[in-house]
Amino acid sequence: MLSLHSSSSDRWLKQVESNLDEILIDHAHCEKKAAGTAMNFIFAYVDNLELCREMTEIVNEELEHFHMVIDILHRRKIEFRRIRPSSYGRKLNDLVRRGEPERAIDRMLVACLIEARSCERFDFLRKYMDGKDQELSDFYGSLFESEARHHTTYVRMAKFFGSDDEVKQRLNELSAIEAEIIEIGDDLPRMHS
Amino acid sequence: MLSLHSSSSDRWLKQVESNLDEILIDHAHCEKKAAGTAMNFIFAYVDNLELCREMTEIVNEELEHFHMVIDILHRRKIEFRRIRPSSYGRKLNDLVRRGEPERAIDRMLVACLIEARSCERFDFLRKYMDGKDQELSDFYGSLFESEARHHTTYVRMAKFFGSDDEVKQRLNELSAIEAEIIEIGDDLPRMHS
Repeated sequence: MLSLHSSSSDRWLKQVESNLDEILIDHAHCEKKAAGTAMNFIFAYVDNLELCREMTEIVNEELEHFHMVIDILHRRKIEFRRIRPSSYGRKLNDLVRRGEPERAIDRMLVACLIEARSCERFDFLRKYMDGKDQELSDFYGSLFESEARHHTTYVRMAKFFGSDDEVKQRLNELSAIEAEIIEIGDDLPRMHS
Repeated sequence: MLSLHSSSSDRWLKQVESNLDEILIDHAHCEKKAAGTAMNFIFAYVDNLELCREMTEIVNEELEHFHMVIDILHRRKIEFRRIRPSSYGRKLNDLVRRGEPERAIDRMLVACLIEARSCERFDFLRKYMDGKDQELSDFYGSLFESEARHHTTYVRMAKFFGSDDEVKQRLNELSAIEAEIIEIGDDLPRMHS
């Protein structure tokens, strides 16, 4: 699904079941980080106006999602707080090659994979929560479509910096490593553990 | 006006008259930077949800302004490019005290003064361009109100971190220094030179 080489496991589902509050808190931080990443791309590639337009849309949408998760936390009386992030983002960012245009391609594809994994997990949770926790099931369902769109946007943005073949091959490489990273997971219960 | 201790001078107006293209390019970068600053505050003070809500609004508005300036550049066939920023922002940021809550107060007040100075200059340009370049006059007029609002928002945000008196006194101090910085100006023709 969506360039991913694997689906989420029962190991992760167990983490969700036992630590839903923490997963929700982490989710809010993830939306904030997704907005921050898109903003960083505006600064890094400001000469590319189509990219800036797309990133502006992503900034707006991710900040909207951030506030939507915060509202859910409030309704559930879960205190929003800073928590240690999972190692997922750092491990993926460590794969970004140095020097342009490789760096730009990789940054776009890492962002693409994070959106894709989020999307896959929202779909997983949407189905799992259906009938159990309808508010969350509906919420994850509502996020699914925009994360899938962002995934596609980032692949298209990568193609500003490399040929179709180059982007396709690199996405395949990174996706294989992403699947290994998510398979190992993280002891901390997180959106991407 | 708006906590400022001075009005823009004829020296700056001469820079604008001789370098309007560059001023417009710099303006686009300033809007981008204003969005980036508000995003940084979301990351720095994420526990403060009212602040995050206000900053989200500012991010959205400043990015919208960024694209509005870009559109004006396009219509005028001015190539948008990276340019060296004026020293104004750096000089103001150098005034931020270390250690919290002083740092938070000062960051909010520096952002407030930048918004205030932008506002004052938009009003100045709105009047100056009236009849000469109506598109720009109208555009600056349309930005005036939101920059004034952002100025007020940042003063209110500063009060999350210090008492009314403390904020008022520090704003007065910083504003006096801001007037000195803008009086000296910058040889580069910029929005804040």
